Parts: sequence; structure tokens; C-alpha cells
Amino acid sequence: MIYELYYWPGIQGRGEFVRLALEEAAAPYVDVGLVPEEEGGGVPALLELLDDASLEHPAFAPPFLKAGRQLIGQTANILLFLGDRLNLAPRDAAGRRWAHQLQLTIADFIVEIHDTHHPLGAGLYYEEQKPEAKRRSKQFLQERLPKYLGYFERVLKCNPAGARWMVGARVSHVDLSMAQVVAGLRYAFPSASRKALRASPRLRALHSEVFSRPRIKRYVASGRRQGFNNDDIFRRYPELDR
Amino acid sequence: MIYELYYWPGIQGRGEFVRLALEEAAAPYVDVGLVPEEEGGGVPALLELLDDASLEHPAFAPPFLKAGRQLIGQTANILLFLGDRLNLAPRDAAGRRWAHQLQLTIADFIVEIHDTHHPLGAGLYYEEQKPEAKRRSKQFLQERLPKYLGYFERVLKCNPAGARWMVGARVSHVDLSMAQVVAGLRYAFPSASRKALRASPRLRALHSEVFSRPRIKRYVASGRRQGFNNDDIFRRYPELDR
Repeated sequence: MIYELYYWPGIQGRGEFVRLALEEAAAPYVDVGLVPEEEGGGVPALLELLDDASLEHPAFAPPFLKAGRQLIGQTANILLFLGDRLNLAPRDAAGRRWAHQLQLTIADFIVEIHDTHHPLGAGLYYEEQKPEAKRRSKQFLQERLPKYLGYFERVLKCNPAGARWMVGARVSHVDLSMAQVVAGLRYAFPSASRKALRASPRLRALHSEVFSRPRIKRYVASGRRQGFNNDDIFRRYPELDR
Repeated sequence: MIYELYYWPGIQGRGEFVRLALEEAAAPYVDVGLVPEEEGGGVPALLELLDDASLEHPAFAPPFLKAGRQLIGQTANILLFLGDRLNLAPRDAAGRRWAHQLQLTIADFIVEIHDTHHPLGAGLYYEEQKPEAKRRSKQFLQERLPKYLGYFERVLKCNPAGARWMVGARVSHVDLSMAQVVAGLRYAFPSASRKALRASPRLRALHSEVFSRPRIKRYVASGRRQGFNNDDIFRRYPELDR
């Protein structure tokens, strides 16, 4: 089975959470958005599948994953599916559910991170909502960031199998996603995240551990991992980082 | 099994999506937030479970559901669990996944609906962000509302089992949640939602169908269903409804 991932080219975005799972499992996949248009990839290929009126299970937005005849949308739903397939989730129902619950809480966190630079909506440019972005970022950095980080640190601390991983005794999709969020926060808010992460030694260790894994290291070194940039969820606007 | 639902009293909020599933299935449950404090319920009972350091699977926020020894958080995750238990989801894996994908898209929709009145974050009062709420609502009503409604209408239209239900040939948790969103939109944006729903005859029919179901009707008539109000996700601020 060769998976087909559909996501906007040029940003890591929500697609990166899926990519990290595929990479960690060394699962064969085509990153359709990154395939040249002349070879049937790129944005036209995405839009074709988004708009295809004959689809039984159309997606609202990328990312979506083609796995054989199945088309699966929503990042956390894709990871729920891949977690089982790629052995990146607990095997028991309660453990899988707990991992999924955490993945959904990460998804909520990501929305709030995105909204720091787009509080008035994605339909306006950042430049059209800068004062509002400053107010929202201030709120976020003062209240929400410590609340989320404190929660995830607590999750690591209360894992009965030890604080190395978020769920159970083995790496899961939750760890990969959590490490990606830490990396993104460090890119977007270098100063504020350094301060906020002081109280989260386990999360810092998790980030190091994930990005030291041989396959993740190889992926990052390959040049295939697109860089963080200011068209993405995590954006570095120094005026928001205070 | 008597389920225990934990959610803030005084609002429908995200708890209502869980309640509608429990009510439709006539599942016995205690709505702990609505139990008087003297009887061990209310906000103190919620906070106790949120803050309990001995929990293996702590929730980030309400709602969460106690089912025997399991504690399950995140609305969509609770509905994934209850969908199976209460026979409110397709039985096959692909169908369940599709229903869950739709439930997650509804969750995204709800965040955007909430953010119309709180674009700068939930840490500030509406009165502190009124001009921003107006701008965000304008964006939402012009671009996002038609996009989401158009998508869900399309989902009904492309259901191979017919446009009566969102997924398959029987009512599911997705239908209950979708109807609740339509009800909420009509409360919050009576004028704009009337216009927007003109192009969505199937969604309007779904709303009527769900709220005509005997158990849902009985629940609404019982007085146990809390009213929409302006502390909730869906808020009626006439200045935003244009």
C-alpha cells in the first residue's frame, strides 16, 4: 500500500503531523501536493479531489489521505487511522481513545496558535489585523500557552509507563505531533516559548527525543521537510512575541 | 451502566452534543453539572475531576464522560465512543470513520461560530472586543458560513443511502450534532442564517427531522434542555447579524 497525502505545498501546516507519522513508520507515501503539476500533482490535484462531485466521502479541507479506495480527512482522524495501521498507537481500545483525545486537544491548541496572527479570520491578511493580533497574542501567551503546556506536561508526568512518552511505553502519533508543536512554538515565539517551556522539562525532553529518532532525523536532513515560514500555522512576527 | 456527563451548568455548550446522543438513545445518565452542589454535583464536582492529580487520563476541559472506570474527554471523541455503544453510528469501520470525520468538521465549525463573538480570545468579555467581533462576524457570514453549509449540504446530497441522514440510512450522532448547529445558528444569527439556509434545503429538513424525533421532542418539552443564552457558544448579538 502506497499512501497518498494531499496537502497544500509550501507549508508544513497540518500535513506535517501526518508526514511525521508516515516518516517515523517508514511507510511508503506520495506527497501529492509536492509532486510537480506536469506529473499530475500540485494544487490542481488537490482541488480536483476536493471538488470531485462523485466522491462519497468528500473532505472539507486538506489534509486528506488516500489509502487504497478510502479517502480520509481531518488530521486527527487520519492519525487515528494511521496509528493503528503503522503501530503508532496503543493496541487496546481505551489506550487508542486516550491517544486520540490528546491528539484532539493538540488540534485545539493549534487553532489557538494559528489565531494569534489571524484573530479576525483567515480571509484577511495579517497586515489587516495587526493590532488585533497583538491583543490576541498577549492573551494567548499569558493565559492559554501556560495552560496547554501545563496540561501536556501533566499528561507526561501521570503516564504510568513513565514520562518519556505521552501514552504508554512506546512512541505514538501523539508524541510526534506534540514535538512538532514544541518546534513550531519555538519558531513562532522564540522568547515567550523559552520562558513558558522552563516549567515543562518533560515536554522539552520529548521534543529532543522525537527529533533524535533516526527516521525523523533522516527526514529532516533529507531536505524533504519544508521549513517553517510566515504563510504557515506557526509564524514568527517579533511584535507578537512578548 | 449509568453514564456521568460532566459539563458546565447554565449553558448548552459542547455538552449538548453529548446530551442529544444520550437522549436519542434513551441512555441512562447523570448530568453532574446540573446536580445540586449539596448532592455532590455542580461546578465543584467538575473541578474536582479536572484537577484530580491521581487521574491517569485527565481531561483538558469539559465536557467529559465517565463510563464505568473510563474517563473520556473531547466532544467528538465522546461521540465516537457513544456512537458505537448507543448504536448511533455505522457499524463498519469506514462508515464510523466517515461519521467521525464529519463530527470533527462540525467541531471546527463550532470554533469559528464561537469566535465570531470572541475573536480576541475567551479571556476578554464580549464588550471588550465588540468592533473586532463585528469584523470577524462579517468575514464569517460572508465566507465561512456558506462554505460550511454548502459542504454539509453536499454531504447529505452525496449520501448513497439518501439525503435524509448525513451518514448511511439511519440516524447517527452526526445528524443530532448537525441539527443542533442549525438550531444554534438560527438563534445566534436569525437573519443571516435564514438567508444562508435558503440554499440548504436538505439541512433544513434534517433539522426538522431530528427535532421531531419522539425522544428529542420529549427531551425539549421536559424543560431539562437548557435554553440558548448569551453565555454560550451561540449568542444573539443583533449587531453581529448582518
